[in-house]
Amino acid sequence: MIDKLSTDSYKGVRDFYPEDMAVQRYIFDTWSKTAESFGFERYDASILEPSDLYKAKGAENEEMVNEQTYTFTDRGSREVTLRPEMTPTVARMVAAKARELAFPLRWYSIPNLFRYERPQKGRLREHWQLNCDIFGSDSVAADVEVIALAYQTMIDFGANDTQFEIRINNRQLMTDFFADRYGIVDPEIITQVNRTLDKRRKVTKAEFDGLLKEIVRDEYEKLRDELNLNVEEFVALLNTERNHSTLINVKNGLEQLEIKNVIFDASLARGFDYYTGTIFEIFELDNDGKSTGRSMLGGGRYDNLTSMFGGEPVSGIGFGMGDVTMRDFLETHNLLPEHLKSTAAEVIVIPMTPEENLFAQGVAQKIRQTGISASTDIGTQKADKKKVRAIDRGAKFLTIISEDEIKSGTLTIRNVVSGEEKTGQLEEILNFLTTE
Amino acid sequence: MIDKLSTDSYKGVRDFYPEDMAVQRYIFDTWSKTAESFGFERYDASILEPSDLYKAKGAENEEMVNEQTYTFTDRGSREVTLRPEMTPTVARMVAAKARELAFPLRWYSIPNLFRYERPQKGRLREHWQLNCDIFGSDSVAADVEVIALAYQTMIDFGANDTQFEIRINNRQLMTDFFADRYGIVDPEIITQVNRTLDKRRKVTKAEFDGLLKEIVRDEYEKLRDELNLNVEEFVALLNTERNHSTLINVKNGLEQLEIKNVIFDASLARGFDYYTGTIFEIFELDNDGKSTGRSMLGGGRYDNLTSMFGGEPVSGIGFGMGDVTMRDFLETHNLLPEHLKSTAAEVIVIPMTPEENLFAQGVAQKIRQTGISASTDIGTQKADKKKVRAIDRGAKFLTIISEDEIKSGTLTIRNVVSGEEKTGQLEEILNFLTTE
Repeated sequence: MIDKLSTDSYKGVRDFYPEDMAVQRYIFDTWSKTAESFGFERYDASILEPSDLYKAKGAENEEMVNEQTYTFTDRGSREVTLRPEMTPTVARMVAAKARELAFPLRWYSIPNLFRYERPQKGRLREHWQLNCDIFGSDSVAADVEVIALAYQTMIDFGANDTQFEIRINNRQLMTDFFADRYGIVDPEIITQVNRTLDKRRKVTKAEFDGLLKEIVRDEYEKLRDELNLNVEEFVALLNTERNHSTLINVKNGLEQLEIKNVIFDASLARGFDYYTGTIFEIFELDNDGKSTGRSMLGGGRYDNLTSMFGGEPVSGIGFGMGDVTMRDFLETHNLLPEHLKSTAAEVIVIPMTPEENLFAQGVAQKIRQTGISASTDIGTQKADKKKVRAIDRGAKFLTIISEDEIKSGTLTIRNVVSGEEKTGQLEEILNFLTTE
Repeated sequence: MIDKLSTDSYKGVRDFYPEDMAVQRYIFDTWSKTAESFGFERYDASILEPSDLYKAKGAENEEMVNEQTYTFTDRGSREVTLRPEMTPTVARMVAAKARELAFPLRWYSIPNLFRYERPQKGRLREHWQLNCDIFGSDSVAADVEVIALAYQTMIDFGANDTQFEIRINNRQLMTDFFADRYGIVDPEIITQVNRTLDKRRKVTKAEFDGLLKEIVRDEYEKLRDELNLNVEEFVALLNTERNHSTLINVKNGLEQLEIKNVIFDASLARGFDYYTGTIFEIFELDNDGKSTGRSMLGGGRYDNLTSMFGGEPVSGIGFGMGDVTMRDFLETHNLLPEHLKSTAAEVIVIPMTPEENLFAQGVAQKIRQTGISASTDIGTQKADKKKVRAIDRGAKFLTIISEDEIKSGTLTIRNVVSGEEKTGQLEEILNFLTTE
């Protein structure tokens, strides 16, 4: 028996009071709207997944699962994990129905994801993420479309294309580059290279040089210079037998769609090992057009994501975009609508005393039946205080019910915005409301 | 390293493929719409809660927490529970800001809840639930409103009031009844009585008589008869010094709102110990107007739900309604809309061969900019197969892009419903689409 319980939420997660929920819904609704404008269909799954789903890729993943996820054993001795990302779940779902589904699929979801880590700004233990994928197409048109969708999510929040940039690269291109130019072919070293490249924007130039030295020793200056080339120059460095047109085609395809804030970045590596082709990331820009280092979203192409389940191979391309970063970005750039849709009622019926509560409920019910939201302020405050509160909450109309109104059946309703008033029988009031 | 992974979800939870997700969204959207028509504001919280939140009520709850919930210890030695119900969470949130919040509050949420139990029809390990509460009002008008909202959720799904009934009772009335008529005052026996009453509809009449005998021995026939009285007769049995008008006022209040499928049921007990006043439950009816035993939702009034957090007492009344039962009900009564909104695109652009993919993406992008959803079928199938698939997914318009269209710049778009066609430059096609 505990005497007095704390009102704190669990560490690293958020409570959504109505004002926070309004922001969250605005973000989710905008995401949905954009994804659906591209014909993406929404799916979902449980946050509970068998832990094996995350361990399938070997010892390194097993370590990740044990150290960075919420994993526990249920009473049936099953090991369960709270999903840390959506991709394994959607791969499982696609594999389960691979024979019935008509590919290519355009699927999106807005799952909550869990990571066991020290809470810090922008990195909570639970966050929501927009996940969009095209499954079952190798066409470069899929790469172009997914990046165009990522771009459009930013635009649909009111951002303009001077406030962010899309960095693109190609994992296969980089693998070939390191093989051709530096003789690096060992997959473990390639992984190390990718991690090094990922740090470029997080460390000083001198530190980055130091990291490059660890990989290519004396050639670090050559490598650093080559990483700064533009896409045509960079591709030209490579063995011409290989086809490296994909990256250029993606860039040109985006230009055709009038998406111009795209730059090639040979040091863009993206952490996940499952990417095999196009990779991309959107970064916030400051007023001088320089990256602030804030990453808005990232994604890429993967081959045969469903291989671990057996069956026909399914490739795809997709991205993920988090709610915490999105909200921070919207606040930084003043892009949150000033009056987020309050779901408090449009019409507030105010009983003068509790004696009139039930009659007032009847009036509110009649108003609702016309399709207009209405509620009765059954609080014990004075009517004047109730008026102030109704206006605070965004009510558009007020009507006060006292003994007089009940006796006469004549009500007065006021438009609090225009000040206009209407007095009459309930039927007349309803007419007034529905024609306003 | 695992050779081949199962595609099964975790036991007792659901995957939501787009067709299931469309049903789920229809249910959630209808719930939201109804709650918001009453001016309820939406909130949410994390599924992770400190386990103490559920243990606060003593040993019995501790047992419930250990045996029926997902509870585990995190790496910081904190005991965490996946929320099995929303009420403790919302009580915590209300208590945390009790000084700032303007009562009465009308709050709703659609949380997912977790119970560790054997999965069976209608009882999964994870389900979603509409939760609606009015906090901070003792007025009987709040009881009437919350029941009216519960009623309206059924109506807004297209149910009519011959398909369900609202059973109401009052916990305080029953406590007084057992004290006055049978001398039962021991809280533990009252709990036993409530559990017995709850079984009335789940056991045979003879079994129920047997259970009543355990409580009141020879008086079981008298008790059984009294449980069948109507509300006025029942209240008349009681010590008149006590005020038992609440139940009658609730019933009359609902009648004033033209809600007539309400019946008093002295054997309605509701499982939860925290109810203290009005309790209610909605049951499905068969064609003969008899209860099928399917409970659609239940709720009631509680005093000072926030007591365990200290501070000012806050009372309230609310209910919860599950998605699994709701979907079953809608399917049984054929109430699911035939064409649930597909989020596949309205316009499908079909490239004749992959060569036209990127051009087709450009056309789709221009269409989207007019506010109409559009996607390009970049699959490798023949154009005829793509047409069939587009229509299957509910597309309204099709346009095919071959080499000819690219050369001439002249496109043809077809309305697949009316068969109407339009041929012209892209600008003309966009005009046609936006004026259709």
